[in-house]
Amino acid sequence: MITVVRDPDDPRIDDFRDLTAADRRPDRPGGRGLVIAEGVVVVRRLLDSPYPVRSLLGVPRRLAELADELAAIDVPAYETDADTMAAAVGFHLNRGVLAVADRAPVPDAVALARRARVLAVLEGVGDHENLGALFRNAAALGVDGVLLGPRCSDPLYRRSVRVSMGHVLRVPFAPLQGDWPGALDLLRACGLQVVALTPRPDAQPISTAGLAGRRVALLLGAEGPGLSAEALAAADTRVRIPMAGGVDSLNVATAAAVAFHAAVASVP
Amino acid sequence: MITVVRDPDDPRIDDFRDLTAADRRPDRPGGRGLVIAEGVVVVRRLLDSPYPVRSLLGVPRRLAELADELAAIDVPAYETDADTMAAAVGFHLNRGVLAVADRAPVPDAVALARRARVLAVLEGVGDHENLGALFRNAAALGVDGVLLGPRCSDPLYRRSVRVSMGHVLRVPFAPLQGDWPGALDLLRACGLQVVALTPRPDAQPISTAGLAGRRVALLLGAEGPGLSAEALAAADTRVRIPMAGGVDSLNVATAAAVAFHAAVASVP
Repeated sequence: MITVVRDPDDPRIDDFRDLTAADRRPDRPGGRGLVIAEGVVVVRRLLDSPYPVRSLLGVPRRLAELADELAAIDVPAYETDADTMAAAVGFHLNRGVLAVADRAPVPDAVALARRARVLAVLEGVGDHENLGALFRNAAALGVDGVLLGPRCSDPLYRRSVRVSMGHVLRVPFAPLQGDWPGALDLLRACGLQVVALTPRPDAQPISTAGLAGRRVALLLGAEGPGLSAEALAAADTRVRIPMAGGVDSLNVATAAAVAFHAAVASVP
Repeated sequence: MITVVRDPDDPRIDDFRDLTAADRRPDRPGGRGLVIAEGVVVVRRLLDSPYPVRSLLGVPRRLAELADELAAIDVPAYETDADTMAAAVGFHLNRGVLAVADRAPVPDAVALARRARVLAVLEGVGDHENLGALFRNAAALGVDGVLLGPRCSDPLYRRSVRVSMGHVLRVPFAPLQGDWPGALDLLRACGLQVVALTPRPDAQPISTAGLAGRRVALLLGAEGPGLSAEALAAADTRVRIPMAGGVDSLNVATAAAVAFHAAVASVP
């Protein structure tokens, strides 16, 4: 159901209005907490996700690319031109199509842990781009889910959704509730080994850590500070990616990819 | 030698003028082909590199952080305030310090290959951010050098320098001259095994490819198209990072990091 809209102030496209200002964390003024997908690829992933899509807004060419998907669902799609779209959204959008969805209930962390072979558990990953890139890597490398410890950003923030190429909409994630890092005991109780990634020289090189065939929860901290001393101490094992001298560290999403590959690829 | 500059039109800071317009490929109009470093960390790496530094421009606080380095060299440093700097450079620079250097002769590709254990060889990596991130990962994971095949961008473009955190100034790189992919024979003649990274399902999983202890040239293509059929055919081995269903690919710098780790970490 495609409706042509020519007035940028049309109330039917209010969900897409002033995204730069409105797309904040829901706990801040102006934040609506909606999920925004940008571009054909990410919009497709949103349509294929559990998030209830509210509507789409796009230029004719991009909506045409989505014709098959739109025919299969009962969601309003608003067709407009690039200038009207820019006036409503607040900036020029070269991807030409947006979709907006409501949030969905998050899965239970323990239920996720029970059925996972490899989980990522994050502490203090606050940068939206790093978080999005980490989800993209988790999806690509077959990680079963992401648990959010303290001081992590919202993976559904618009920039994270975009950088993840929509994979935050596919990889299950949940906050790990309760005392930190005590809550890691819940993962151990599910049969997962808690493996902390750290650049510390006394950690074991990840390639010889024998992750083969084990069910693991990979504990990852922010670029810069890394994992807290408490989180490092609470892990069963500490592993490192051997680094060349004079280099501070890898980007957290890149380090995560190396670790995900080491854990997932080692299935016997 | 610190000189205070208050006039954004002062000709002594011409190297830093209108960077957005001037910082183009040297073969385009307005491009000066200089190497620009932004921020204290990257400026330090430039000062520590073989590139002949011409001058620095910064606010007092950032120049003070570099006092030890500046005392050891004979290079003009221009001190100014943030507004004058923004007026000269053309945008507000929150890192507060810039350095500019001339280019230096590139090493010989064959000489680089002769002494390398692990080399990256790029085909068609045109995105400046991906290229910068790839150099950062090469530095972190101990790759000995990067060879540029056809259709690669200039690693010394300002955005690449920044994203690499200055590691393009440390990791040796050189164009791989001559016929492509025939020039790969030069690497084989240096005793390197040419290993192509590809998502193709008939390639061998990289974790079981036995890179252990071998000297390898890792052949990497652009995200999206990947390596050309000619380059794939010219490699000795084709390896893949096993990917989950429904995911297109990893970012090229991220895939490179996984491959670099697999090759470097497997030293017996």
